[in-house]
Amino acid sequence: MHSEFENYLKNYDLPDEAACRISSLAMSRTLRRNEFLMSAGEICKHKVFVMSGMLRIFNITADGNEHILQFSPGHGWVLDVESYDRQVPSKVNIGAVEPSEILYWHKADFEKLLIEVPQLRLYADQLISRNIHHSRDRILSALGATPEEKYEEFVQKFPKLLNRLPLRMIASYLGVSLKTLNRVRHAQLQRI
Amino acid sequence: MHSEFENYLKNYDLPDEAACRISSLAMSRTLRRNEFLMSAGEICKHKVFVMSGMLRIFNITADGNEHILQFSPGHGWVLDVESYDRQVPSKVNIGAVEPSEILYWHKADFEKLLIEVPQLRLYADQLISRNIHHSRDRILSALGATPEEKYEEFVQKFPKLLNRLPLRMIASYLGVSLKTLNRVRHAQLQRI
Repeated sequence: MHSEFENYLKNYDLPDEAACRISSLAMSRTLRRNEFLMSAGEICKHKVFVMSGMLRIFNITADGNEHILQFSPGHGWVLDVESYDRQVPSKVNIGAVEPSEILYWHKADFEKLLIEVPQLRLYADQLISRNIHHSRDRILSALGATPEEKYEEFVQKFPKLLNRLPLRMIASYLGVSLKTLNRVRHAQLQRI
Repeated sequence: MHSEFENYLKNYDLPDEAACRISSLAMSRTLRRNEFLMSAGEICKHKVFVMSGMLRIFNITADGNEHILQFSPGHGWVLDVESYDRQVPSKVNIGAVEPSEILYWHKADFEKLLIEVPQLRLYADQLISRNIHHSRDRILSALGATPEEKYEEFVQKFPKLLNRLPLRMIASYLGVSLKTLNRVRHAQLQRI
């Protein structure tokens, strides 16, 4: 798992030595389907990289509804940024959608790496920018898009996730009811 | 305006010399109410700090509806991060809600400052984290909160903005219709 991660880092211009150093401080873990990595109320103490499978970040509101903030399929990072940065209890849960393999770093180790390895800092900055752009698009979509547009955006952005996710999770991610999502999908199939 | 900005920076532990250097590369400008600072399709070339007044970042969808991403009252930063980072055409507009005074920096100058002044980098990182936390909350709220909860969150977060904004802009920010916002406000007043 570690060597696969080192190969992944090479896509981001991290030299072998840097990739090896980052990988050397990582721990690994497997998660069963539906297993929680972190529950709301806990403090996010690790940077987590998903090697295979898929995790999701979500919260559950007082009325019992689940709202999904993010899907993290293989080769993506997952954490609650606010809880990790400020070491305060998290408002969200992180759980496995599929059986998953992860690598994770203690916060103190990762911060040490960010200082030691300037290329990691550059890579982290790229990820942060991408996160900000993506969140901006998501807010605009949540404010103004119709359920049809929201579903279409999802299909465009995450074509490979469609068959891996139960419909209720796609609905929770889009912020529409399952009934609405079924209607939108049905109408779309009729058009093809 | 420049000395007021330097004083503001001192709240973030930037030493006099650093604040003075940052301020020395800033240009200033005033905006009339409703004047645009940037239109969708343009490339965001400046970091902008609002000294007084208020700006908003918004987009207009094909059906002519306005969706507000952010209000930036005095002593806040405003830019389209994606357009600024990647120098691609912006999807959003930036305009003045009130007569406003701004300071702004050319991207190249600001990037030079980030290298020259390590404390500016730390301050910028704080702002980025705050932006990410705030976006996360906003997405969860857009997905799961009722109009009543959305309005209540707005009142809690921005009590000072309530009397400065037309209701239609608050509705555009919350992603609810003006009619719904009026109903929510009316019901709230009845409860007091």
